[in-house]
Amino acid sequence: MEVTRSNFKESLPKVYAAIEEADFLAIDGEFSGISDGPSVSALTNGWDTPEERYQKLKKHSMDFLLFQFGLCTFKYDHTDSRYIMKSFNFYIFPKPFNRSSPDVKFVCQSSSIDFLANQGFDFNKVFCKGIPYLNQEEERQLREQYEVRLQSNGASTMSYISPNSQKTPVNVPEDQKQFIGTVIEKVEDLLRGEEKKTLDLEPCTGYQRKLIYQTMNWKYPKGLHVETVESEKKERYIIISKVDEDERKRKEQQRQAREQEELDNAVGFSRVIHAISNSAKLVVGHNMLLDVMHTIHQFFCQLPEELNEFKEVTTCVFPRLLDTKLMASTQPFKDIINNTSLAELEKRLKDAPFNPPKVVSAEGFPSYDTSSEQLHEAGYDAYITGLCFISMANFLGSFLTPPKSHISCTSKLIGPFFNKLFLMRVMDIPYLNLEGPDLQPKRDHVLHVSFPREWKTSDLYQLFSAFGNIHVSWIDDTSAFVSLSQPDQVQIAVNTSQYAESYRIQTYADYVEKKQEEAKA
Amino acid sequence: MEVTRSNFKESLPKVYAAIEEADFLAIDGEFSGISDGPSVSALTNGWDTPEERYQKLKKHSMDFLLFQFGLCTFKYDHTDSRYIMKSFNFYIFPKPFNRSSPDVKFVCQSSSIDFLANQGFDFNKVFCKGIPYLNQEEERQLREQYEVRLQSNGASTMSYISPNSQKTPVNVPEDQKQFIGTVIEKVEDLLRGEEKKTLDLEPCTGYQRKLIYQTMNWKYPKGLHVETVESEKKERYIIISKVDEDERKRKEQQRQAREQEELDNAVGFSRVIHAISNSAKLVVGHNMLLDVMHTIHQFFCQLPEELNEFKEVTTCVFPRLLDTKLMASTQPFKDIINNTSLAELEKRLKDAPFNPPKVVSAEGFPSYDTSSEQLHEAGYDAYITGLCFISMANFLGSFLTPPKSHISCTSKLIGPFFNKLFLMRVMDIPYLNLEGPDLQPKRDHVLHVSFPREWKTSDLYQLFSAFGNIHVSWIDDTSAFVSLSQPDQVQIAVNTSQYAESYRIQTYADYVEKKQEEAKA
Ligand SMILES: Nc1nc2c(ncn2[C@@H]2O[C@H](COP(=O)(O)OP(=O)(O)O)[C@@H](O)[C@H]2O)c(=O)[nH]1
Ligand SMILES: Nc1nc2c(ncn2[C@@H]2O[C@H](COP(=O)(O)OP(=O)(O)O)[C@@H](O)[C@H]2O)c(=O)[nH]1
Repeated sequence: MEVTRSNFKESLPKVYAAIEEADFLAIDGEFSGISDGPSVSALTNGWDTPEERYQKLKKHSMDFLLFQFGLCTFKYDHTDSRYIMKSFNFYIFPKPFNRSSPDVKFVCQSSSIDFLANQGFDFNKVFCKGIPYLNQEEERQLREQYEVRLQSNGASTMSYISPNSQKTPVNVPEDQKQFIGTVIEKVEDLLRGEEKKTLDLEPCTGYQRKLIYQTMNWKYPKGLHVETVESEKKERYIIISKVDEDERKRKEQQRQAREQEELDNAVGFSRVIHAISNSAKLVVGHNMLLDVMHTIHQFFCQLPEELNEFKEVTTCVFPRLLDTKLMASTQPFKDIINNTSLAELEKRLKDAPFNPPKVVSAEGFPSYDTSSEQLHEAGYDAYITGLCFISMANFLGSFLTPPKSHISCTSKLIGPFFNKLFLMRVMDIPYLNLEGPDLQPKRDHVLHVSFPREWKTSDLYQLFSAFGNIHVSWIDDTSAFVSLSQPDQVQIAVNTSQYAESYRIQTYADYVEKKQEEAKA
Repeated sequence: MEVTRSNFKESLPKVYAAIEEADFLAIDGEFSGISDGPSVSALTNGWDTPEERYQKLKKHSMDFLLFQFGLCTFKYDHTDSRYIMKSFNFYIFPKPFNRSSPDVKFVCQSSSIDFLANQGFDFNKVFCKGIPYLNQEEERQLREQYEVRLQSNGASTMSYISPNSQKTPVNVPEDQKQFIGTVIEKVEDLLRGEEKKTLDLEPCTGYQRKLIYQTMNWKYPKGLHVETVESEKKERYIIISKVDEDERKRKEQQRQAREQEELDNAVGFSRVIHAISNSAKLVVGHNMLLDVMHTIHQFFCQLPEELNEFKEVTTCVFPRLLDTKLMASTQPFKDIINNTSLAELEKRLKDAPFNPPKVVSAEGFPSYDTSSEQLHEAGYDAYITGLCFISMANFLGSFLTPPKSHISCTSKLIGPFFNKLFLMRVMDIPYLNLEGPDLQPKRDHVLHVSFPREWKTSDLYQLFSAFGNIHVSWIDDTSAFVSLSQPDQVQIAVNTSQYAESYRIQTYADYVEKKQEEAKA
């Protein structure tokens, strides 16, 4: 089902229930762009280390907006031996909720936007009806603002004056004396009179409002309720009301309830992510590193400096992740699956030796039709990802004696695939290992070459023409990794370049060492 | 009328005709945001110099996208003493048009997006059907790409090999020899055979395609046409056809025509801006500095480093500009117009002493209804701006003897308002003067104060409490301009601060001098 700002609040219990009852969850995100820095192929260089890849994605991909989030929950129905799924497609947008809320800036990449536009993506739904969100720091700040206000109002003091300031007269600057004098006169009138219970002051500046609050607290510590409201013209003005103690308390409580609701609304979609996190359920995604990074960045906290800290944060937020692209690229699947892109994978897993999974959508939830593709709606992609996971998990059951046709998410058979996120286009490190150090394959056949901007791939082929087969991975305009087929040629190549002026060749090991030295310096 | 990618080409002649016949043009732009840096009030500090303001807008406002452009043309009809207007509302989006086209990244500011969403702005129209554009540098590059290709193909050589390289054999690297060998065999078959006229090669890498082109040019300089095409799966492959000279020429011409059309499509909306510029007509806008900066930035060139160069570029692109906000803030209007915001100005100018202008929309063009507001569609805002200009211009006619009720755009009476762009919220410099140096009012009652981050406006009031009325203009968290009512107090304030540790006061003149020294260093 589609969830926007209009139906978010009423849908939330359904979302919570779906997460609660599920055996596993599948997620997918759509973003406003991929890379605001290097070209995508330079962003994903074949010889990136996991640390380098993390740093590049953090630097060049986090200013985009995750504006559609797909969640599909899967619950196994033992009676009918099938999964029951509930799919949600959330539209997300950081709508500012009040004057002091963060005014988020995000980047759009025209190729990504154009791609989504061609898929029939509804941008109006995002921008006009997207659900807002706060990360944990923003939520904390907002909560604090409210709490400080609540406390101070309960004690009839304002947040920004020290606790005993109400005992000392307010220091009203010369040019404000007349203004404050007029307000005091009006309040005296109000207190003397019988008919009127409230007094609307003229709109004024924030500084003047502060002076009014201070003056009222000092001169009339009891019997008055002072409140700032916004007019239709967006001007802020103060209403002063005569109240007895009971009425004052009631007004206070009303305000507290209103503010709690405002807070909940502002936290918005992050509550869904909190629920996923708190459930500690298995979360499945396809090629999900960027999805995980965006989700943490947007709804939890700024991404940490170092990859190691990122791994810690991620395992706290999502204790069990499974990446279907990594799974499909690993044995026993690797040999029988040629193309691991989501659409192709889903098709492949319908045929032998795999079995298409039995999945029905829950009552009251729309079903997706996998024969008429709707790829690139996040909810649909999450659904397909879940299907792929089920097929592959069940396939593992065929190796048991006796074979089992259903493998549950808690089976030891799928343990080896947990918490390994697919690393796109890295030659020799298939995944980011969230549970410990990453693989460190030898790269003793790899050279780092720097050269003039004018060089093309053909110049590199020419340079290494004596060494047979080579493979070029561009880093930027003036450098590339070149891998040779024979590691023992590496030293020869480095030696022959010793006196070259226009280019420079070093071993991968030397390159890494220099880079680390530079980082320290 | 609404113009999108779907009807742009067929609408262009109408747009050109409207510009051609008009007496003056009114424009307005909608952007994806205003400031990606300081808050809007810090972006428009009251004591900015024109140079500082230009630098801030350039730095903090140009990464947004101008995605809707309103153009309203006005032509005076002497017979009926009324204006005939044609209004166009263009949707604009940098859709990438081929593999090598720039992949534009632009920033969105959630408050601006939310504002437009509330006005019913159609983002889908922008992103799905926006008209593309190129600035002059991008256009030049694309044209060059095509021209190089055309020439080289005409002469049967490729762009990236030197003119005589076709006389020397191609240097095919070892690992590509087999691949190229197979291609040559297939071509020999093609040339020998009678039945087949074309040969589709398998998809291959760009480097391999280059080798194929080079090899073909060298081995078969005549009688073959080699072309790269893209399959439905977006894979690029080469088609080789046997051709006689006539057929080859015809194919070449077809390709030239196709490429010229591609180029025109890519230049897209910029052609409208070129037409406006070439017409040298009076262009009217309301508070138009940002519109002008965005227009030049997006459709002409990167904004120059210095304000002076910007003025030169602007007067080249738009020789006559008139800002209705500046006009309304200048005598004789200043005294009779309280609120110069566009909507309020339009209302005010319907009443005495002004006369609502007589304007009808041209046949076949939809008319706007100013009583049911549609503000913030760019085409409507441009229309309203034009109305305001006409009313104010005609009002100037009432000072003539005998009074005139219609004042044309070429009248000397409006000359004083040309090429002065309103400077928002600057205290003492009403406009940016495009035709020469800017006003340099004395600022000898202004102080620059720096202080700890914790300070609030009230701390500044307190600090200056001895000096009567002050005015605070925040620069950032730790500095502000404070203006005193009496210039002779300035030196006293500076002196008393001499031994202060937490804060620092300097005169405006000293502040400017230090800043210039720092800029030089
Ligand atoms: N000097 C030079 N740099 C190149 C060349 N090809 C690629 N690069 C650089 O390497 C980066 C990645 O290139 P590539 O892998 O071909 O991907 P692409 O930019 O997406 O086509 C580019 O952004 C360039 O900075 C080349 O022929 N010469
Ligand atoms: N330290 C401090 N800085 C302030 C205060 N008020 C404003 N500023 C700074 O001045 C900038 C402009 O402030 P202001 O003119 O009030 O506009 P606003 O930020 O849009 O509300 C802000 O972005 C802050 O960096 C204050 O009370 N204390």
